[in-house]
Amino acid sequence: MCELTVYLQNEEKEEKLMEDVATIIPDGERLVLTDLLGQQKIVEARIKELRLLEHKVYLTR
Amino acid sequence: MCELTVYLQNEEKEEKLMEDVATIIPDGERLVLTDLLGQQKIVEARIKELRLLEHKVYLTR
Repeated sequence: MCELTVYLQNEEKEEKLMEDVATIIPDGERLVLTDLLGQQKIVEARIKELRLLEHKVYLTR
Repeated sequence: MCELTVYLQNEEKEEKLMEDVATIIPDGERLVLTDLLGQQKIVEARIKELRLLEHKVYLTR
Protein backbone atom coordinates (compact mmCIF):
# COMPACT_ATOMS: atom_id res chain seq x y z
CA MET A 1 0.00 0.00 0.00
CA CYS A 2 1.12 3.50 -0.62
CA GLU A 3 -0.87 5.92 1.48
CA LEU A 4 0.97 8.94 2.68
CA THR A 5 0.91 11.11 5.73
CA VAL A 6 0.66 14.78 4.90
CA TYR A 7 2.47 17.40 6.98
CA LEU A 8 2.27 21.17 6.78
CA GLN A 9 5.55 22.93 7.42
CA ASN A 10 5.62 26.57 8.38
CA GLU A 11 8.83 28.19 9.49
CA GLU A 12 9.90 25.96 12.34
CA LYS A 13 6.60 24.25 12.95
CA GLU A 14 5.39 20.99 11.50
CA GLU A 15 1.77 19.96 11.74
CA LYS A 16 0.30 16.61 10.77
CA LEU A 17 -2.66 17.36 8.53
CA MET A 18 -3.92 14.00 7.38
CA GLU A 19 -3.05 10.30 7.40
CA ASP A 20 -3.74 7.55 4.87
CA VAL A 21 -3.91 10.02 2.01
CA ALA A 22 -4.74 8.30 -1.25
CA THR A 23 -4.97 11.19 -3.71
CA ILE A 24 -3.64 14.74 -3.87
CA ILE A 25 -5.01 17.02 -6.54
CA PRO A 26 -3.82 20.62 -6.90
CA ASP A 27 -6.64 23.08 -7.61
CA GLY A 28 -5.28 26.57 -8.13
CA GLU A 29 -3.77 27.72 -4.85
CA ARG A 30 -5.25 24.80 -2.98
CA LEU A 31 -4.70 21.08 -2.64
CA VAL A 32 -7.51 18.58 -2.37
CA LEU A 33 -6.47 15.67 -0.15
CA THR A 34 -8.55 12.52 -0.03
CA ASP A 35 -7.91 9.66 2.34
CA LEU A 36 -8.62 5.95 2.03
CA LEU A 37 -12.10 6.40 3.48
CA GLY A 38 -12.95 9.09 0.98
CA GLN A 39 -12.76 11.93 3.47
CA GLN A 40 -11.54 15.15 1.94
CA LYS A 41 -9.55 18.10 3.17
CA ILE A 42 -8.91 21.20 1.15
CA VAL A 43 -5.86 23.17 2.20
CA GLU A 44 -4.32 26.38 0.96
CA ALA A 45 -0.82 25.14 0.47
CA ARG A 46 1.56 23.78 -2.09
CA ILE A 47 3.66 20.66 -2.22
CA LYS A 48 7.15 21.23 -0.90
CA GLU A 49 8.47 17.70 -1.03
CA LEU A 50 7.27 14.16 -1.61
CA ARG A 51 9.29 11.51 0.22
CA LEU A 52 7.72 8.30 -0.94
CA LEU A 53 10.00 5.84 0.80
CA GLU A 54 9.09 7.52 4.08
CA HIS A 55 5.43 7.79 3.08
CA LYS A 56 5.50 11.50 3.75
CA VAL A 57 4.40 14.60 1.91
CA TYR A 58 5.47 18.02 3.13
CA LEU A 59 3.33 21.02 2.25
CA THR A 60 4.10 24.68 2.74
CA ARG A 61 2.16 27.93 2.49
CA MET B 1 7.19 0.03 -1.04
CA CYS B 2 5.80 3.19 -2.41
CA GLU B 3 7.66 4.17 -5.53
CA LEU B 4 5.59 5.85 -8.16
CA THR B 5 5.57 5.95 -11.91
CA VAL B 6 5.49 9.47 -13.27
CA TYR B 7 3.53 10.32 -16.41
CA LEU B 8 3.42 13.56 -18.35
CA GLN B 9 0.00 14.38 -19.77
CA ASN B 10 -0.33 16.87 -22.59
CA GLU B 11 -3.63 17.33 -24.33
CA GLU B 12 -4.44 13.80 -25.43
CA LYS B 13 -0.99 12.32 -25.07
CA GLU B 14 0.44 10.54 -22.09
CA GLU B 15 4.14 9.84 -21.79
CA LYS B 16 5.85 7.75 -19.16
CA LEU B 17 8.69 9.85 -17.79
CA MET B 18 10.18 7.80 -15.00
CA GLU B 19 9.63 4.66 -12.93
CA ASP B 20 10.47 3.87 -9.32
CA VAL B 21 10.37 7.51 -8.32
CA ALA B 22 11.26 7.97 -4.67
CA THR B 23 11.18 11.76 -4.26
CA ILE B 24 9.56 14.66 -6.06
CA ILE B 25 10.67 18.16 -5.15
CA PRO B 26 9.17 21.22 -6.82
CA ASP B 27 11.76 23.87 -7.67
CA GLY B 28 10.13 26.94 -9.14
CA GLU B 29 8.62 25.95 -12.47
CA ARG B 30 10.37 22.61 -12.43
CA LEU B 31 10.13 19.31 -10.65
CA VAL B 32 13.14 17.33 -9.53
CA LEU B 33 12.40 13.60 -9.74
CA THR B 34 14.73 11.10 -8.13
CA ASP B 35 14.39 7.36 -8.51
CA LEU B 36 15.40 4.52 -6.20
CA LEU B 37 18.86 4.38 -7.75
CA GLY B 38 19.43 8.07 -7.19
CA GLN B 39 19.06 9.01 -10.83
CA GLN B 40 17.53 12.43 -11.33
CA LYS B 41 15.34 14.01 -13.94
CA ILE B 42 14.40 17.65 -13.96
CA VAL B 43 11.23 18.44 -15.87
CA GLU B 44 9.41 21.65 -16.58
CA ALA B 45 6.00 20.61 -15.39
CA ARG B 46 3.67 20.73 -12.43
CA ILE B 47 1.83 18.03 -10.55
CA LYS B 48 -1.64 17.47 -11.88
CA GLU B 49 -2.68 14.53 -9.77
CA LEU B 50 -1.22 12.02 -7.35
CA ARG B 51 -2.94 8.65 -7.34
CA LEU B 52 -1.16 6.76 -4.64
CA LEU B 53 -3.19 3.58 -4.67
CA GLU B 54 -2.34 3.21 -8.34
CA HIS B 55 1.26 4.29 -7.73
CA LYS B 56 0.92 6.99 -10.37
CA VAL B 57 1.69 10.67 -10.59
CA TYR B 58 0.39 12.72 -13.48
CA LEU B 59 2.24 15.87 -14.47
CA THR B 60 1.20 18.55 -16.89
CA ARG B 61 2.85 21.57 -18.52
